[in-house]
Amino acid sequence: MFQSFEVTSTPQFGHERVMALRAAFDALAIDAFLVPRADEFQGEYVPAYAERLAWLSGFTGSAGIALVTRSQAIVFVDGRYTTQLLDQVDTSVFSGGDLVGEPPHQWLGKHGPKGMRLGIDPWLHSGAEVRRLEKALAEIGGALVLLPHNPLDRLWTDRPEAPLGAVTIQTVAQAGVLASEKIGAIATHLVEKNCAALLVTDPSSIAWIFNIRGNDVPHTPHPLARAIIHAGGRAELFLDNRKTDIEAEAYLAQLCTQLSPADLADRLAAVSANGARVMVDPDLASQALTDIIRNAGGEVVEGSDPAKLPRARKNQAELNGSAAAHLQDGAAMVAFLHWLETRKPATVSEIAAAERLEAIRAEVGQAMQNPLKDLSFDTISGAGEHGAIIHYRVTTESDRLLQAGELYLIDSGAQYINGTTDITRTVAIGAVPEEQRRFFTLVLKGMIAISMARFPVGTRGCDLDPLARIALWNAGADYAHGTGHGVGSFLSVHEGPQRISRMSMQELLPGMILSNEPGYYRPGSFGIRIENLVYVRDAEPVDGGDLDMLGFETLTFCPIDRSLIIAELLTHDELHWLNDYHLRTREALMPLIHDAEVRAWLENATLPLVH
Amino acid sequence: MFQSFEVTSTPQFGHERVMALRAAFDALAIDAFLVPRADEFQGEYVPAYAERLAWLSGFTGSAGIALVTRSQAIVFVDGRYTTQLLDQVDTSVFSGGDLVGEPPHQWLGKHGPKGMRLGIDPWLHSGAEVRRLEKALAEIGGALVLLPHNPLDRLWTDRPEAPLGAVTIQTVAQAGVLASEKIGAIATHLVEKNCAALLVTDPSSIAWIFNIRGNDVPHTPHPLARAIIHAGGRAELFLDNRKTDIEAEAYLAQLCTQLSPADLADRLAAVSANGARVMVDPDLASQALTDIIRNAGGEVVEGSDPAKLPRARKNQAELNGSAAAHLQDGAAMVAFLHWLETRKPATVSEIAAAERLEAIRAEVGQAMQNPLKDLSFDTISGAGEHGAIIHYRVTTESDRLLQAGELYLIDSGAQYINGTTDITRTVAIGAVPEEQRRFFTLVLKGMIAISMARFPVGTRGCDLDPLARIALWNAGADYAHGTGHGVGSFLSVHEGPQRISRMSMQELLPGMILSNEPGYYRPGSFGIRIENLVYVRDAEPVDGGDLDMLGFETLTFCPIDRSLIIAELLTHDELHWLNDYHLRTREALMPLIHDAEVRAWLENATLPLVH
Repeated sequence: MFQSFEVTSTPQFGHERVMALRAAFDALAIDAFLVPRADEFQGEYVPAYAERLAWLSGFTGSAGIALVTRSQAIVFVDGRYTTQLLDQVDTSVFSGGDLVGEPPHQWLGKHGPKGMRLGIDPWLHSGAEVRRLEKALAEIGGALVLLPHNPLDRLWTDRPEAPLGAVTIQTVAQAGVLASEKIGAIATHLVEKNCAALLVTDPSSIAWIFNIRGNDVPHTPHPLARAIIHAGGRAELFLDNRKTDIEAEAYLAQLCTQLSPADLADRLAAVSANGARVMVDPDLASQALTDIIRNAGGEVVEGSDPAKLPRARKNQAELNGSAAAHLQDGAAMVAFLHWLETRKPATVSEIAAAERLEAIRAEVGQAMQNPLKDLSFDTISGAGEHGAIIHYRVTTESDRLLQAGELYLIDSGAQYINGTTDITRTVAIGAVPEEQRRFFTLVLKGMIAISMARFPVGTRGCDLDPLARIALWNAGADYAHGTGHGVGSFLSVHEGPQRISRMSMQELLPGMILSNEPGYYRPGSFGIRIENLVYVRDAEPVDGGDLDMLGFETLTFCPIDRSLIIAELLTHDELHWLNDYHLRTREALMPLIHDAEVRAWLENATLPLVH
Repeated sequence: MFQSFEVTSTPQFGHERVMALRAAFDALAIDAFLVPRADEFQGEYVPAYAERLAWLSGFTGSAGIALVTRSQAIVFVDGRYTTQLLDQVDTSVFSGGDLVGEPPHQWLGKHGPKGMRLGIDPWLHSGAEVRRLEKALAEIGGALVLLPHNPLDRLWTDRPEAPLGAVTIQTVAQAGVLASEKIGAIATHLVEKNCAALLVTDPSSIAWIFNIRGNDVPHTPHPLARAIIHAGGRAELFLDNRKTDIEAEAYLAQLCTQLSPADLADRLAAVSANGARVMVDPDLASQALTDIIRNAGGEVVEGSDPAKLPRARKNQAELNGSAAAHLQDGAAMVAFLHWLETRKPATVSEIAAAERLEAIRAEVGQAMQNPLKDLSFDTISGAGEHGAIIHYRVTTESDRLLQAGELYLIDSGAQYINGTTDITRTVAIGAVPEEQRRFFTLVLKGMIAISMARFPVGTRGCDLDPLARIALWNAGADYAHGTGHGVGSFLSVHEGPQRISRMSMQELLPGMILSNEPGYYRPGSFGIRIENLVYVRDAEPVDGGDLDMLGFETLTFCPIDRSLIIAELLTHDELHWLNDYHLRTREALMPLIHDAEVRAWLENATLPLVH
């Protein structure tokens, strides 16, 4: 299994570990220390050795940062985790902070004692974060202290080793473009920007540029590694050679010099000598790295990671791969939904359902000779009131049976070598109240609005977000999350810069893969989310139009529970989209399904609805 | 008449005036000089004495700025004015710049000669602009020179005098809130912000705070004046007493000390002494004013004009006044549309139509004892291909007849003592091609979408803008302007901060008046725009909803040309909205209309459409 439902929090050590940390303050000449959940690669998932926040506090959520002062220990989390935080930490030691409304730098500006010296590990904070902290501390006459080592790491005696996940090669058939071409394009960009070199710090960019994948962190198949790309086209890849076999090393030798991660500091300093201009993404690179450049006499040129936008715009090979991965994943989902529908109510638990879906994905992967490499995130499997918790993570403690008369929400995804999937379906366990069917239909209207949208070149994610909400707004309701996030190509399931959300100013460009996942949540009662992945493409011209338009092509094919749809609430166009989607789903998936019962289920689940 | 259609541009003087300006450079130790269209009040309309850009160049557009260097004279304008600029200036002297894509500060950064000393009149530029210019000049090793006098003013020998429009009082029945209460609220705000005083520089804020109106510039009834409001609640109003009669002075004496505008500098310096904190809106206040504060030892506290948001949120008295003004204006529009429909094609010119509408507004105003005080802007009156020019301004040179078979677009508004109106109708002159009817219907769908929208508290203008466009997007089309602008209460027809546009992050708040005006423009062929004013209000709760929602109430009542609507393209809900709107229009306007023929026309123009 690629996921565990055990509760692994260890709040019982919080007191002694915080005391030990504070005991180190004097020797370091600091009054406080920050413990982010982030590792030195600033990724969404971190390896076990970097789970410092969990080790210190017990809090295992995916985002958070602890501020330990001489008298307080505050864990700043967002709204998703306020309840979980209180469950997981020793509340006699830790209190909760508001990561969104008053993050640490704002907290410091308001409540920090005058003259506070705040220590940080400069490998765990980006340059942009460091500037925010410095500004806040300056306002209270304090100072930021960049520590030469992380005091926690000296206390954490049984700290796991850094991961050594095997590196694999993406063929050009999968990647669509040779790594040498990508390196060449970056080198050209560096020449244009008058830079000597680029420091690549985002492991997903490493994976994309070199057409390799890794296995260092859960759910995101990028290798923890960094690279320097020179304006002349030469590349140095700092990738532990215990991760690479002979084949991988032979492949990489054609592209770059493979060096030990331990060599990075020296090489970066050498590149930076004599005022060389080195490009760095200040939102992604650790402050420690930019300090190396500056200390060696180099000039840090801040710029967005030049791999970011090309990586987001999938080429035809990547789109073809993703489409194939989604069909395979759809076949697994159909087998799962058939299985679920044929269980008696109150016999399947949330964990059992999630495990069953993972097992089916693994079986289908074997049968289709395209194995399940990982899940793309921990499955959200919530029945009844659990469905209303947007990021519900079922554990052995919270697990419960799926009961008749309630909605069941399952949001899951898989990593295949040809693509990353992410799908949410909400299904009825028996007959559910009409009110829940009505909201299901309103959410579906929003999902269809995005699916059918045509929009001019230049449209940003924020421009489309409201289209998914109008039907709910008209019913006096809304949902408190964005409508969609970018998705990688056998990489992170949360990939920028594209998003469909009220804050996203990024223009939508052909080839970008996004989720389309409106929802509705009634706390303590039920939750609904319907999610397909789509990609941006040129829209077919229409008669009388005079602008270049874009639209979405759907990647995800899987039936949407017809028993939950009130057809009369759909417009003619929406009903047409739904019936066409179901027809396409049947035609696409039937050839992949061989079990007669499952085929019959799919046939039935994709019949047209009429007004 | 409150408008003129004469061409008043004087390009023939451009050469000598630019040469004379350059001749002054050496004595001033500058290499270049900026001539904005703005006056020292930073308003949309400027009085004749401040039309420096037109005097220098001949360009009479409503936005622009000239940069005169020793060798170049560039007039920066936006896309609306690129053609007009070339028509109005001596192109052997002036070239065109891109006010949006490369405004002067960006132009200077890229093309400005090293070490350039750029002179400006610090009364004509806001602090925010000055900072942009200083930054750009610093990059090229240049300097910004704040001149003690404007060199153009010494050359402009027959410059008109400053206007002395009479000041009138808005009764509390019209304004809804006593001026003394508004001043008290501002004083409280100053205490909260720990400021000694507020410098009010926006004439519309002066008008709103003191419940007065003026007559200094075309189309916007605010008096050119400034004020200092003290944290203790005392107010000083710098308003020429030639503008105030005995009644106005007696009224103002209860609220403030009325001083001469010439006293402002001394009073502001006195207020600023000993490090006093003085609040100023850096986007609205001239650099010269903030310099007075700083030079006198005061601290400039930058903050958004505290009158701006309360002014935008109309109270019930203002909304009632606006509704009444709109009914009166609707009666005038109906009389006009009836008149137009009963003319033979090719007998009415664009100017004749605009003049006729203004005359009818004046007549209706007299009959209803609520006289037309002004137009709220110069009427846009465009037939056929002229309708495609978004800000078309008909002149005696461009005027043409309304021909059978084409669309005619008229965008106009009026100032009444109880409200400001702005309405666009597009009507068919005879039968028009089906394609134009189709686009008219698509534009109407967008206008209805905004009219019907329900949205959660917190929704911003940018969130609603796309709703007006979806129907056009689906047809491969769009329009290159925002969907709506804020509108004042017997004040500016373009009032911030509220807007419905892709750039507007301002939350929509109850009481805000906005235009709702999607359009479609086919260059060289035809143009369509349909515009109503609406205001934000709490939406009626709906069963099963769980959020506080807002919606719009329509202010404008006037028939929408039914002959241009293809009913089959409207949804049931859209058709219902339209028929209900027409029914409400008939019921609201019929009591105001006494001519039997016009009544019959209105009856017919508001009949329901069916699928």
